[in-house]
Amino acid sequence: MPEPWLPGLTTQTPQEGFDLAVKLARMAVKKTQPDETVREVLRPRYAGDAGDLIAASHVVAVHFATIAAANDYWRKPS
Amino acid sequence: MPEPWLPGLTTQTPQEGFDLAVKLARMAVKKTQPDETVREVLRPRYAGDAGDLIAASHVVAVHFATIAAANDYWRKPS
Amino acid sequence: MPEPWLPGLTTQTPQEGFDLAVKLARMAVKKTQPDETVREVLRPRYAGDAGDLIAASHVVAVHFATIAAANDYWRKPS
Amino acid sequence: MPEPWLPGLTTQTPQEGFDLAVKLARMAVKKTQPDETVREVLRPRYAGDAGDLIAASHVVAVHFATIAAANDYWRKPS
Amino acid sequence: MPEPWLPGLTTQTPQEGFDLAVKLARMAVKKTQPDETVREVLRPRYAGDAGDLIAASHVVAVHFATIAAANDYWRKPS
Amino acid sequence: MPEPWLPGLTTQTPQEGFDLAVKLARMAVKKTQPDETVREVLRPRYAGDAGDLIAASHVVAVHFATIAAANDYWRKPS
Repeated sequence: MPEPWLPGLTTQTPQEGFDLAVKLARMAVKKTQPDETVREVLRPRYAGDAGDLIAASHVVAVHFATIAAANDYWRKPS
Repeated sequence: MPEPWLPGLTTQTPQEGFDLAVKLARMAVKKTQPDETVREVLRPRYAGDAGDLIAASHVVAVHFATIAAANDYWRKPS
Repeated sequence: MPEPWLPGLTTQTPQEGFDLAVKLARMAVKKTQPDETVREVLRPRYAGDAGDLIAASHVVAVHFATIAAANDYWRKPS
Repeated sequence: MPEPWLPGLTTQTPQEGFDLAVKLARMAVKKTQPDETVREVLRPRYAGDAGDLIAASHVVAVHFATIAAANDYWRKPS
Repeated sequence: MPEPWLPGLTTQTPQEGFDLAVKLARMAVKKTQPDETVREVLRPRYAGDAGDLIAASHVVAVHFATIAAANDYWRKPS
Repeated sequence: MPEPWLPGLTTQTPQEGFDLAVKLARMAVKKTQPDETVREVLRPRYAGDAGDLIAASHVVAVHFATIAAANDYWRKPS
């Protein structure tokens, strides 16, 4: 069995939580378009389109909300 | 009575929860467009469109938030 | 007084909750466009458009989040 | 002082809560475009556009989530 | 030090909360486009576009959800 | 080790929380398009497009919801 790509939602710091949110956003794209070659072709296109970048940022925001809640907003000293 | 396609929101791991989120996102598409032939025609189109892929990733994010809450963020050791 | 179309948010199963989410998404469209003839004309159009299908799936996801919370995520055995 | 258009978020039934969500969605449009004549011109346009209808349905879904939470999901008998 | 434009999220009434949501939605636009002249040029354009108006209404809905939660849904008599 | 760009979600005031939300929205764009030159080219384009500005405002709204919850809505006197 391969190592799980998502072992959990808990992170040491908010910043690591943010990076995890970015990862989750990308992973969902990967689930819909599993072909890496196609994704490589699309990447420069949406990375150069303002509307797509904002839309991608939106998805990160939704995942970050989930991760922040999972970490009780990193309120307690770790 | 057929086996329910959605027996519950509880999953053993976060990763299974993520896969369930992908499933729910697709199921809602299926409810709006029940004709599999049409969906098969559309799939390569949106799988090759950056904006559509990001939008699909967004829907997964919303379902993942629900599933994560349902699992209390997989905080407790299962 | 007619039977209410939305008697409550509680459902026996997650799957019924998902169907209710689909219903709520459609009902809001109906409130904005009450003319059934127009809706009938539009239906095949958005059911054949990948972007519209994903957008419709998104609305279902938001309603499903509400309904899942209302049912305490169907955690307890009913 | 005029009667407030939004006296509260509590409603007797889920269905009234849904209608309030529709009202809130429209009121926000009104705040951005206060000119009724312009809104009257736009209404048939978006009421005949599948994408706009779905987008409007989305806004209703977000408000309904808020109103449902405000009413504790109408769980208790009123 | 200038008066803060956002002293808090608490409002006396739901309606004031709604107006604050509209304010927050506009303020975020201002943060991205600080030039008032440009914003003045854009305003009539999006105020006359159905899709933009619905999108703006959506942003208000998200902020209203936050403000409503901050005010515990104005449940208690103030 | 460099100073973290996101040390935490707690802010002294709601207004600082709003500014942090704007920062998070931008940071997610940066993660998808790390090339500052490209971002500089895109900035005036979306800052002059009503739809993009509203979309950016939407992302800020989602992050602000998270930050507001993290700060318990700044209810208690600090």
